[in-house]
Amino acid sequence: MNKIILLKNRPTGKPTLSDFEFSEEERPKAKEGELLLKAKYVSVDPYLRGRMRDEKSYIEPFKVGEPLESGIIAEVVESNNRNFKRGEFVNGTLKWKQFQTSNGNGLNKVDREKAPLKAYLGVLGLTGITAYLGLDKIGKLKKGETLLVSGAAGAVGSVAGQIGKIKGCTVIGIAGTDEKTDRIQEKFGFDGTINYKTSKDMKTAIKEACPNGVDVYYDNVGGETLDAALANMNKFGRVINCGAISLYNETKTPTGPRVESTLIKNSILMQGFTVRDYIKDFGPAQNQLAKWMEADKISYLETVVEGFDNIPQAFIDLFEGKNKGKMIVIV
Amino acid sequence: MNKIILLKNRPTGKPTLSDFEFSEEERPKAKEGELLLKAKYVSVDPYLRGRMRDEKSYIEPFKVGEPLESGIIAEVVESNNRNFKRGEFVNGTLKWKQFQTSNGNGLNKVDREKAPLKAYLGVLGLTGITAYLGLDKIGKLKKGETLLVSGAAGAVGSVAGQIGKIKGCTVIGIAGTDEKTDRIQEKFGFDGTINYKTSKDMKTAIKEACPNGVDVYYDNVGGETLDAALANMNKFGRVINCGAISLYNETKTPTGPRVESTLIKNSILMQGFTVRDYIKDFGPAQNQLAKWMEADKISYLETVVEGFDNIPQAFIDLFEGKNKGKMIVIV
Repeated sequence: MNKIILLKNRPTGKPTLSDFEFSEEERPKAKEGELLLKAKYVSVDPYLRGRMRDEKSYIEPFKVGEPLESGIIAEVVESNNRNFKRGEFVNGTLKWKQFQTSNGNGLNKVDREKAPLKAYLGVLGLTGITAYLGLDKIGKLKKGETLLVSGAAGAVGSVAGQIGKIKGCTVIGIAGTDEKTDRIQEKFGFDGTINYKTSKDMKTAIKEACPNGVDVYYDNVGGETLDAALANMNKFGRVINCGAISLYNETKTPTGPRVESTLIKNSILMQGFTVRDYIKDFGPAQNQLAKWMEADKISYLETVVEGFDNIPQAFIDLFEGKNKGKMIVIV
Repeated sequence: MNKIILLKNRPTGKPTLSDFEFSEEERPKAKEGELLLKAKYVSVDPYLRGRMRDEKSYIEPFKVGEPLESGIIAEVVESNNRNFKRGEFVNGTLKWKQFQTSNGNGLNKVDREKAPLKAYLGVLGLTGITAYLGLDKIGKLKKGETLLVSGAAGAVGSVAGQIGKIKGCTVIGIAGTDEKTDRIQEKFGFDGTINYKTSKDMKTAIKEACPNGVDVYYDNVGGETLDAALANMNKFGRVINCGAISLYNETKTPTGPRVESTLIKNSILMQGFTVRDYIKDFGPAQNQLAKWMEADKISYLETVVEGFDNIPQAFIDLFEGKNKGKMIVIV
């Protein structure tokens, strides 16, 4: 049999296990032109929360009663498609199923000689590429500038900060525990950190951590942290709105201070960033990240959870900040 | 004697006449290298409200007890500077004084053969250039797109919309009276209009007026109109945050729905625009606008108030929307 995980109902607020349904189906067979894939590593990411809402976004919402999906590294266990061989590994947006078939569209082969397979879900995968392209397309970092990163201990933030260091910037990271802020400085080489949970006044905390102001803010969290960052942006500052995890579980439209006067005063740019808008740039971004990894210029952390059945809990744990770096489930 | 107008105190909320002091001083004399200027046309603009606050912005705040200043067309009535001749007219940021001296720095000569002098405060001046460069630098309008403009009957908005038509876009304008919305369509050739004062639900009103969604929003007002526009922006939409007149007289930090999730969902760009950031582009912008004016592709309206003593009232009237197009005081 084949285990599968379906969306049982759309979560209200924070997702819970009761929003997921564990089910089984017959193991599928690969038809002519198809592959049979066995999931190996499953990526769980905060943006999936958005797909659980029934609303138009950059990506189709999940349907109730159907399997969820995310970035998955899978092994080709059977191939009736001449482009793929049995024993190869592929990366793609795949369903939360132990086994599934595919016609090969949208799959990329991954080379386990070049990097550990899991890295293709993290620093060489969508999260690393998100960090790289967000900075490249919107941040346009210049040497000597100050880069502020929220969610800095996370999969995207930790890479974004390290790229900032490679580019010759002063990099300050925001995270929610002292253990995380220590890690940001020690393992990822950030110049300074802010613990947003113990800081009484984030606006002042950022001002003190960034005495020359903030030129680029890589935002993964939104909400009050964004407000505080905006108050510290320099003239011509750029905000990469990559994520807003602080708002994902809100049930009402969140409100906050209006931004327009601040944007006008300092000619600030804010732009929503979705890595899928830049698919044609994935290759060069991945190559650059692989080079930096090889040269030991980029470190990364993973939290690896074992067992197919634990995918939903691993996802839920993201909202408690239980992960260190990229959260991955090994099936 | 020489009449002058000083900032008496910083307004709380909407400015009133009691915030201004009418005074007199001796008429100044031009020293070696200086000019004596006589104010002819004085521009009053919403952004001056920002300079009345004691806070850092893109331009220095006015000082209490000192003369205010704005864009002024003045006649050279005496010249000890070989770059300027008596009888010439200049445009510059000058003080609210009938007569004043200048060393010529920051003054541009204006050619009354090319266009009426007043046009250099409007369509060929900062307001026209603001419309042009905001669209050029941030809006990056493409033929066939939908441009939404707020403050569309005003000095900046009316030119922005006409440029949109020249570029082959569908242009919808927002204004606050039926007389204004009629004017936008009849005189300025907009494709459609919305009266925000009589529309019950601006989000729906914009949706109906822009069935293909909004690609570029030229925002002069901020606040709830901006919220409604953001809800209607297409993927990769661009918001030019040029002004926020609806918030200028607020005494507390205004709040509203948070924008970050909306920006992320549709990869929307919002950027604060201040024309003074692009001084090197003023010449080409003015030339292009002059060509369009000559070819009758751009119309404009002015509200001309007479008398030096009426400058403050003309400024105050901007916040009641009493102007039709550019508000100018003839001295």
